[in-house]
Amino acid sequence: MDTQNNLENFTKQLDFIREIDKVKSIFRQTPITDKSRKENDAEHSWHLAMMAMILSEYAPEGTNILRVIKMVLIHDLVEIDAGDTYLFDEAAQNDKAEREQKAADRIFGILPEESSKEIMNLWHEFEERKTQEADFAYLMDRFQPFILNITTEGISWLEHGIKASQVLTRITPAVEKYPLFMDYLNKNVKMAVEKGWLKEG
Amino acid sequence: MDTQNNLENFTKQLDFIREIDKVKSIFRQTPITDKSRKENDAEHSWHLAMMAMILSEYAPEGTNILRVIKMVLIHDLVEIDAGDTYLFDEAAQNDKAEREQKAADRIFGILPEESSKEIMNLWHEFEERKTQEADFAYLMDRFQPFILNITTEGISWLEHGIKASQVLTRITPAVEKYPLFMDYLNKNVKMAVEKGWLKEG
Repeated sequence: MDTQNNLENFTKQLDFIREIDKVKSIFRQTPITDKSRKENDAEHSWHLAMMAMILSEYAPEGTNILRVIKMVLIHDLVEIDAGDTYLFDEAAQNDKAEREQKAADRIFGILPEESSKEIMNLWHEFEERKTQEADFAYLMDRFQPFILNITTEGISWLEHGIKASQVLTRITPAVEKYPLFMDYLNKNVKMAVEKGWLKEG
Repeated sequence: MDTQNNLENFTKQLDFIREIDKVKSIFRQTPITDKSRKENDAEHSWHLAMMAMILSEYAPEGTNILRVIKMVLIHDLVEIDAGDTYLFDEAAQNDKAEREQKAADRIFGILPEESSKEIMNLWHEFEERKTQEADFAYLMDRFQPFILNITTEGISWLEHGIKASQVLTRITPAVEKYPLFMDYLNKNVKMAVEKGWLKEG
């Protein structure tokens, strides 16, 4: 009986592992540092997990880094069905929540019940941003593309005609509690305007 | 003083975060599930971390899953300098350790001392495979490409003319302690030979 249950669960887990391979083909707007192409969701999520690990000293005391890492690993899985919504595409932001909840139901539902619930809870926690773990995960998610955009001389900002105020509006709420990150943001937005990578205003 | 130290450390951490972006351009032999192209190290590492999370119930009691996840996230960073060594390329396996240690010294050395040491220790722990965390990380690292190879009807095995015995020799040591994984390996190697994806013998 136990063996049968185990095998059923294992089969569901392998189905899920194959399903999530699809995020390797979901491309974001941000280029990788050598500018050769845009980054996909799997690479982005790996980079965030590495950052959470390396930068954990800046998280408030008592932050559970395992939960932060789990959140950033899974936060984009819903894009398998819902697609990537560009941070500066305001129209697409409107029905994003609905599209993504439907995707979460299907994709997380492939898993056995217990881990399906765990992942659904982690994803909601990330989206609601009420815990210090979600706040730190959100910092990683907003700060990583900013680093890549600066490193690639703003090619994706230029492609979309992005203004300094759009970047500050979208990224400040994620970084304002973290002084070193906020300083880096302000200094580099200023530099990006001077270099012509971001439009003024 | 503290602020100055913090800023120096933060600068080193950002340098490291930019440097490791390069693993997104290191391609492995295994294709992604839609067969459109080969997988890179960042995607592979993300997939292993997801698997460690989803499959944690099969790890021995007391396994520290955070340490497993950290190990799989960082295990391929040395390939930025040392390149990917194909599992079935026996000649290249010979000087792999030396090439990779040199790479680890340079790449992990970009970080502030404390996290540089943490990552070096994690990488050695993974390579030495003496702890239950390293053993479980190694299971993920060998099992993931096997799933992808089966899902893609062995196109990368066919490309390299791989035999069933080569797969069993290379993967069995990683999975033999884990019955469900071992059964999956045996059944699917048998099927792969029947379908002509792996050579007999």
